[in-house]
Amino acid sequence: MDARPIGVFDSGAGGLTVLHECLVTLPHEDFTYLGDGARLPYGPRPLAEIRRFALEIAGYLERQGVKLVVAACNSATAAALPDLQRTLSVPVLGVIQPEARAAARATRNRRVGLMATEATVASGRYEAMIGAADAGVEVVPVACPGLVPLIEGDDPFGEATVAAVREVAAPLKAAGVDTVVLGCTHYPLIRPILQRVFGRDVTLVFSADETAREVAETLARKGIENDPGREGSYRFLTTGDPDAFRSMGSRFLQLPIGTVEQVAVADLERAAA
Amino acid sequence: MDARPIGVFDSGAGGLTVLHECLVTLPHEDFTYLGDGARLPYGPRPLAEIRRFALEIAGYLERQGVKLVVAACNSATAAALPDLQRTLSVPVLGVIQPEARAAARATRNRRVGLMATEATVASGRYEAMIGAADAGVEVVPVACPGLVPLIEGDDPFGEATVAAVREVAAPLKAAGVDTVVLGCTHYPLIRPILQRVFGRDVTLVFSADETAREVAETLARKGIENDPGREGSYRFLTTGDPDAFRSMGSRFLQLPIGTVEQVAVADLERAAA
Repeated sequence: MDARPIGVFDSGAGGLTVLHECLVTLPHEDFTYLGDGARLPYGPRPLAEIRRFALEIAGYLERQGVKLVVAACNSATAAALPDLQRTLSVPVLGVIQPEARAAARATRNRRVGLMATEATVASGRYEAMIGAADAGVEVVPVACPGLVPLIEGDDPFGEATVAAVREVAAPLKAAGVDTVVLGCTHYPLIRPILQRVFGRDVTLVFSADETAREVAETLARKGIENDPGREGSYRFLTTGDPDAFRSMGSRFLQLPIGTVEQVAVADLERAAA
Repeated sequence: MDARPIGVFDSGAGGLTVLHECLVTLPHEDFTYLGDGARLPYGPRPLAEIRRFALEIAGYLERQGVKLVVAACNSATAAALPDLQRTLSVPVLGVIQPEARAAARATRNRRVGLMATEATVASGRYEAMIGAADAGVEVVPVACPGLVPLIEGDDPFGEATVAAVREVAAPLKAAGVDTVVLGCTHYPLIRPILQRVFGRDVTLVFSADETAREVAETLARKGIENDPGREGSYRFLTTGDPDAFRSMGSRFLQLPIGTVEQVAVADLERAAA
């Protein structure tokens, strides 16, 4: 039995889609969530810079005493997962591999679209992982630079977001993909819009529930689960505006968020793993 | 080819969960949605009164020239579906039968919980429909009088809603059900809360996508589909506050709602089918 919390991080509120699935699967565990709102979005940054941010945050969470870290951010996973796993003493899980496997399983015509940030597309990680699951699958990637700021903005469900989604969807529809990977943890937050734009014949894949299952299996394998009879709690940290984070969390995840603690970027920089 | 719109109605915003699935399945059709906000909630009312309301609204929609009516409200379906079908000249679909079939298919231990309004529980329609699909399934019904007003209220994702869901879930968990029917179109609007309270081992069933499929099949069978190459539109009517409806719709369904027209209850009363 291990009473330490699980650490989950993202550039902003997108990782809450992963936290939600973790709360469904592991209601008896405690969670510490860190959103790096001050440096959002990660997507347009060079991979080396995102790698540095990820190592800082994971190092900070490790000093907070977490027993496992989930990189609930596709850009950070693409840029830094092997480095995080090599550097930290606790297990680190990312969000790309379960999604790549799910996409390879879901496609019928073996044409898979990828919506992701510029950084994730540039990394080529999805092509590699989907290819490892089925080398015959063709991946059509589209970088979506505008979407994360729109989703974290004032009018996430307005006409501008719908127009941005249509623009991104057009080349994927033209390519005849039957499956689209939502390769950023922010995108499931606008799933109804995505469903309406892509229609019934396209399968949307995202991995939050599979990631949660992987967390549960890892805890069990390592023997570091908490008491299954207790009720877990969650704690929120952000480098950005706590009020903005609270309203995002409540709106998107239907989670009474409570107190959100602010962390200085300088504290993260000092904690680099 | 038939350019008339499809009518969808509910006591409030719950039926938007059905409208969303219709927009995914039938993007080329036009829709007229009517929410009876002035008389919400329906659940605590006698079945005869709900039946009268449903006949008024369906009659009003028929005069607006719709080609099919969806009673996107479980209480109205429970109280009035046969009367609506007998009275209207256009096809009328409800939301209970697809859900009952789905629940009978989903359960492994043949113990199914039902969350619904008092009116829907009192009608006994779910027991009858689930029994018709599998007479060996035991149904455990729980009336949830507080939930619709909380979901349509100012703080739908706050502690009060979480507490109300826990209270409703307790007897269902104690009864050992492995499947729970969300027997009110409002309940999917708080699905993340329901998922966290019930956990991974309970299957939550609601029928919006199956209802949308039934709409599509009915249009095809009757030969009253619109041109598949066009882009459909939607129009919103409410007997309640248009601004409140607009903010609910945007929040829950990520739909830019635009203009919401107000309809007087007296106009509905005059239109009774």
